[in-house]
Amino acid sequence: MKKIILVALLALFFTGLFNLPLHAEEGMFPLSEIHKLDLKAWGFSIGSREMYNPSGVSLIDGIINLGGCTASFVSGDGLILTNYHCAFGAIQAVTTTENDYLRDGFFAADRSAEIPAKRYTVRLIESYRDVSREILTAAKKKMTYAQRSKAIEEKINLMVVAFEKSNPGKRAEVAEMFRGKTYVLFIYNYIKDVRLVYAPPRSIGEFGGEEDNWMWPRHTGDFAFMRAYVAPDGSNAEFAPQNVPFQPKKYLKVAAEGVQNGDFAFILGYPGSTHRHKSSHFIAHEENIRMPFTVDLYRWIIQLKEKMSSGDRGVAIKLSSSLKGLWNTVTRSLGQLKGLKNLHLVEKREKEEESLQQFILANPARQKKYGSLLADLAKVYEEKGKRARRDLTLSSLLSNRISFMLGNAFKICEASYERVKEDTKRESAYMDRNFDRTQKQMTMALRDYHEPTEKALLKEMLRRAAACKGEQAIAGLRDIIAGGDEEKAIDAFLEKAFAETKLKNPEIVSDWLTKTTAQLQAMNDPFVNLAFALYPDHRELKEAEKKEKGVLDPLLAQLVDVRKEFMGRDFIPDANGTLRLTYGRIRGYVPADAVRMEPFTTLNGIVEKHYAHPDLPSYQAPAKLIELAKAKDYGRFAHPELDDVPVAMLYDMDTTGGNSGSPVLNARGELIGLNFDRVFEATINDYAWDESYSRSIGVDIRFILWSLAKFSGADRLLKEMGVQ
Amino acid sequence: MKKIILVALLALFFTGLFNLPLHAEEGMFPLSEIHKLDLKAWGFSIGSREMYNPSGVSLIDGIINLGGCTASFVSGDGLILTNYHCAFGAIQAVTTTENDYLRDGFFAADRSAEIPAKRYTVRLIESYRDVSREILTAAKKKMTYAQRSKAIEEKINLMVVAFEKSNPGKRAEVAEMFRGKTYVLFIYNYIKDVRLVYAPPRSIGEFGGEEDNWMWPRHTGDFAFMRAYVAPDGSNAEFAPQNVPFQPKKYLKVAAEGVQNGDFAFILGYPGSTHRHKSSHFIAHEENIRMPFTVDLYRWIIQLKEKMSSGDRGVAIKLSSSLKGLWNTVTRSLGQLKGLKNLHLVEKREKEEESLQQFILANPARQKKYGSLLADLAKVYEEKGKRARRDLTLSSLLSNRISFMLGNAFKICEASYERVKEDTKRESAYMDRNFDRTQKQMTMALRDYHEPTEKALLKEMLRRAAACKGEQAIAGLRDIIAGGDEEKAIDAFLEKAFAETKLKNPEIVSDWLTKTTAQLQAMNDPFVNLAFALYPDHRELKEAEKKEKGVLDPLLAQLVDVRKEFMGRDFIPDANGTLRLTYGRIRGYVPADAVRMEPFTTLNGIVEKHYAHPDLPSYQAPAKLIELAKAKDYGRFAHPELDDVPVAMLYDMDTTGGNSGSPVLNARGELIGLNFDRVFEATINDYAWDESYSRSIGVDIRFILWSLAKFSGADRLLKEMGVQ
Repeated sequence: MKKIILVALLALFFTGLFNLPLHAEEGMFPLSEIHKLDLKAWGFSIGSREMYNPSGVSLIDGIINLGGCTASFVSGDGLILTNYHCAFGAIQAVTTTENDYLRDGFFAADRSAEIPAKRYTVRLIESYRDVSREILTAAKKKMTYAQRSKAIEEKINLMVVAFEKSNPGKRAEVAEMFRGKTYVLFIYNYIKDVRLVYAPPRSIGEFGGEEDNWMWPRHTGDFAFMRAYVAPDGSNAEFAPQNVPFQPKKYLKVAAEGVQNGDFAFILGYPGSTHRHKSSHFIAHEENIRMPFTVDLYRWIIQLKEKMSSGDRGVAIKLSSSLKGLWNTVTRSLGQLKGLKNLHLVEKREKEEESLQQFILANPARQKKYGSLLADLAKVYEEKGKRARRDLTLSSLLSNRISFMLGNAFKICEASYERVKEDTKRESAYMDRNFDRTQKQMTMALRDYHEPTEKALLKEMLRRAAACKGEQAIAGLRDIIAGGDEEKAIDAFLEKAFAETKLKNPEIVSDWLTKTTAQLQAMNDPFVNLAFALYPDHRELKEAEKKEKGVLDPLLAQLVDVRKEFMGRDFIPDANGTLRLTYGRIRGYVPADAVRMEPFTTLNGIVEKHYAHPDLPSYQAPAKLIELAKAKDYGRFAHPELDDVPVAMLYDMDTTGGNSGSPVLNARGELIGLNFDRVFEATINDYAWDESYSRSIGVDIRFILWSLAKFSGADRLLKEMGVQ
Repeated sequence: MKKIILVALLALFFTGLFNLPLHAEEGMFPLSEIHKLDLKAWGFSIGSREMYNPSGVSLIDGIINLGGCTASFVSGDGLILTNYHCAFGAIQAVTTTENDYLRDGFFAADRSAEIPAKRYTVRLIESYRDVSREILTAAKKKMTYAQRSKAIEEKINLMVVAFEKSNPGKRAEVAEMFRGKTYVLFIYNYIKDVRLVYAPPRSIGEFGGEEDNWMWPRHTGDFAFMRAYVAPDGSNAEFAPQNVPFQPKKYLKVAAEGVQNGDFAFILGYPGSTHRHKSSHFIAHEENIRMPFTVDLYRWIIQLKEKMSSGDRGVAIKLSSSLKGLWNTVTRSLGQLKGLKNLHLVEKREKEEESLQQFILANPARQKKYGSLLADLAKVYEEKGKRARRDLTLSSLLSNRISFMLGNAFKICEASYERVKEDTKRESAYMDRNFDRTQKQMTMALRDYHEPTEKALLKEMLRRAAACKGEQAIAGLRDIIAGGDEEKAIDAFLEKAFAETKLKNPEIVSDWLTKTTAQLQAMNDPFVNLAFALYPDHRELKEAEKKEKGVLDPLLAQLVDVRKEFMGRDFIPDANGTLRLTYGRIRGYVPADAVRMEPFTTLNGIVEKHYAHPDLPSYQAPAKLIELAKAKDYGRFAHPELDDVPVAMLYDMDTTGGNSGSPVLNARGELIGLNFDRVFEATINDYAWDESYSRSIGVDIRFILWSLAKFSGADRLLKEMGVQ
């Protein structure tokens, strides 16, 4: 199949599709664009006011951001539909070897049995406005690049804090739409009591596992239900037994009849980030430096965590969530690397930039304004490349992915420097508005602490960090790797550190987060000491990043301007975690000559994979599902032509990470599916989009309803969603 | 892709398609069946007399057997179209590092430049008749099983020799249609002067190489042209410059417009062998013993030959033909093993046999006749299994695949024992009618002799043979492996043998083939000595085989009889190298849920593979082809809907090895393609056929004509075929 993918990508390059103007269906339209769109002309049955209406009720009011994923309300009582993989953290957190909800699934018999999902919050958009002019006034000509970045950051913080102070319970975020150019203030309602209602067994919710991740044909029942709760008076509150279900202004109607091949459809969601407006130098840096580093490191971490998980269900549960994330990144990165290489994307962008440069030089005014633009961009990435190994290594070393002990110690140390600053001058995690959450995340993460895993990871990571020499050296490691034998010194440090540290205790973590630098240094905790030693290296890295952003922002703003002139058309801003609309059709694709991928998979396909791979745990579907499928017990949920229940579906919409859990809607705005992935060829979406291979994958609503009705007997939920 | 295949096979098992009665399209109909068929009702535009007419001219007269492959006449001047891989031996034989026809292709500018293909002969069917009764009279009740086999063999030989004596220049063959039951005498015309006319470069004729062999999507231009020549008086003659092109009674009309998806089509050809009427025990023996042995041994040989070939074009040319064969067998066997395992074919046959046994026991007359049938069959394969390791090892050791020196020495030795017998009592290769060809094959094979390869292969094979101990021991190795250290003894023998043997000289090989046993023993040639030492082991094996056939023949005849009763319908005999008709449609297939294979590939698909795999030599198409494809220079050969030249096509006909080179014909009997392979799922065809996955692959006639017209400028051939 990999072979087919290569061929497909190459085919596109050589048939020159990338030279065509961007297709009408590309685009993650921000809210600000929606009222400009003639939705009905494109196939919608609803108008832009039904989509988004700042002064009334519209579809947007039913769409939420759920901890980085998208989700939607599907009942008047705050019932939420999102992906299984988005709810995974909540399921994992309450799974024990006794109550193995990962293995068995979970269904709350009644509302009182719905389980708090402690790290989950719901963000609901209330309004937005363009604040570009206000923000950009903060940047003064005489500032250094780093000062410029910091000034803009602070300006944003001031704006956000001011708003939140006068609007308690609301949340404000400023999103940079075009880098260094346009800024939008989003106001969100923020619900903190979210509970788990229904999750299928992992053997449905993750059917196909890593084998099928990013792949088509797909048979994953990647859905789960949660519910938003508020205080009895309707205000937002932390979990409390007396809380009541949230009543959304709008919830999505379920279209139980589903869709057909070729039908119009659209998606609303919170795509995370794309890089379609950056220069060739950025892509080259991604391809040659960042992604190979990540793939290499993560593969090693995966190998270790899988070894630790095997044979011990307790450890496996602890490590399951991070393993999912690591696998996901590795497979996506490999797809992207393959795509970049085979589409020769850097080369193509370079050619475009050559033409752009000629266009710039052809006119004296343009030459004056943009003459050195591309050369300046090149310089930024040249600098970045020089620091890369050290920067990537240091960031990894300090992250939770390697060690909760060092990761938390570092945040404790950083907090002691940041918390003494004025609120709006702090790094975001330590601002008053975020500090609670930071603290909660740090202490709750410790539930997944497994010392042998962490010790092995940290040992290897310290070894890699110590191997950065010369200009790339990480100065803070000096003490640890002193003496002749670095390997031995690291071992000795780790033995001592894990024996002596107090950071295994969540209460101490919470407590130390409020200590001063001096108090912390007096503690003499080995991990805190190491964090302090590494802090100057980290500051250096941060400053370099701020400088880089300070340089890049105006350059990228210029790049968008001159490209608009050059290509004679407007662009849609790259995804940035804000709400976007994308539309298209239910549609298969042709990954290679003579191979056609159909847009629906079926229950019978699950049965096929189940029996074809008795040795692969991820293809072992629940016995009950297999029986129901064999008995053709489809209820009313069969696709008429397939004579089977559709499980997953393909469509040609423009999505990326963050669109996980996005509702897929028909022309009338009714729910027909749940977005959860892209095909392997479309991992390259983040850098370049093409209508011939950019396909996203959703769970068909008929499979969700069939699972509730036939597999789980969850009539309570069907009734609540108005499905008889 | 492998995953998809597994799923497909399993899908079929679990949806129970194998339980359905055999589909109308299964079947390789023998000539004797054709007049019974209502061809027009099935979609043919021609009647059975136009297909086969013993007293006139019919399509059959245009179909030939070309050294184990099928081929067809495509002009009145004896022009032959067959597969590139069928003509490969001829191309390889005349390729040198100076005239590298493998690399560059070959096109004879005029007829005088057509190159003799020395080992090739053409066999044209003239007539046939059922001789079952005559043959079976030879088997007497009092005979042992081995005597029974030999008596039938001799009877066949007598019949054949008698016919050929009174019909000089003709060839007779008796084919066993149903084992131990029906025998048919075929009379063939036999043309000995065959010449190479056109071969594309290997990069077209074998495009995709081993990566794509047995796979779809496929882009192999597996075609070549040869020509049959006869003496000026029309009689069959060996190559001579004064020979003239053979004028066939019938040649195929080329349908330059090709076909569409869903069109009716049929194939005439010489399928080699299938095993659909054998018992579960045979399949179990294949799955558990014979195929794993072959795969293991051949993989090792491939590895060695590839190592020897790399970096030396001369050696690579010598070994290329045998490497192709080895790869082909290994990939096919792996497909079959996977299919057998995943379809649980043995288990299914066993269940069928259980029902059959109940059917037998339900009626006293049946019980008396067939009561012990299945138990007796089981015993045969139990015996066979016990001898298997030794038998397979010994046969491999004595074959040309390992060593021309030992292989030829063995035939020389065997000839000395056989040639003193009455002609009709000899092993077939040593009968007067075959002896010339045997001699030619033995001497010509020496052109591919490469001593370091042969030494290494023989060393390993002797080591494996020596490792057969106890009941499995090969007695004839006693002298060679005498002394304590077998490894050393083998090395010593080989050093001496390769230094001293005279068998590297083809003239000596020819000469010694006529020597007596005593004369040969006096030569004291090390390989001849070893052959004599191994001869008793070989005789033992041969006797066991004859006994086995003697036991099996009547049992298998009974099995067919009782299964006919049981299932209430007739069977078509297994393929046995005789002319067969199969028909069906141009048709894709669904290898897995949501994956559809379309029935045509295109030139653009070649371009895609070419650029997607710059590192794979087998995907490097000729630059000129890539240019023509990019320029869309399709001439009149494009498929109207694909807007591209179709390269390969899929159809649901029933084919197997030997059908290579078979013409694919439209309803009117016009040439639309050239059969050359099956899809991976269909390797299992030899044991079980199913309309949902049994797909064969052909070169589309439009690609053949396009290649001649655009790539090679071979207008002479287009004109000769009546294509303007």
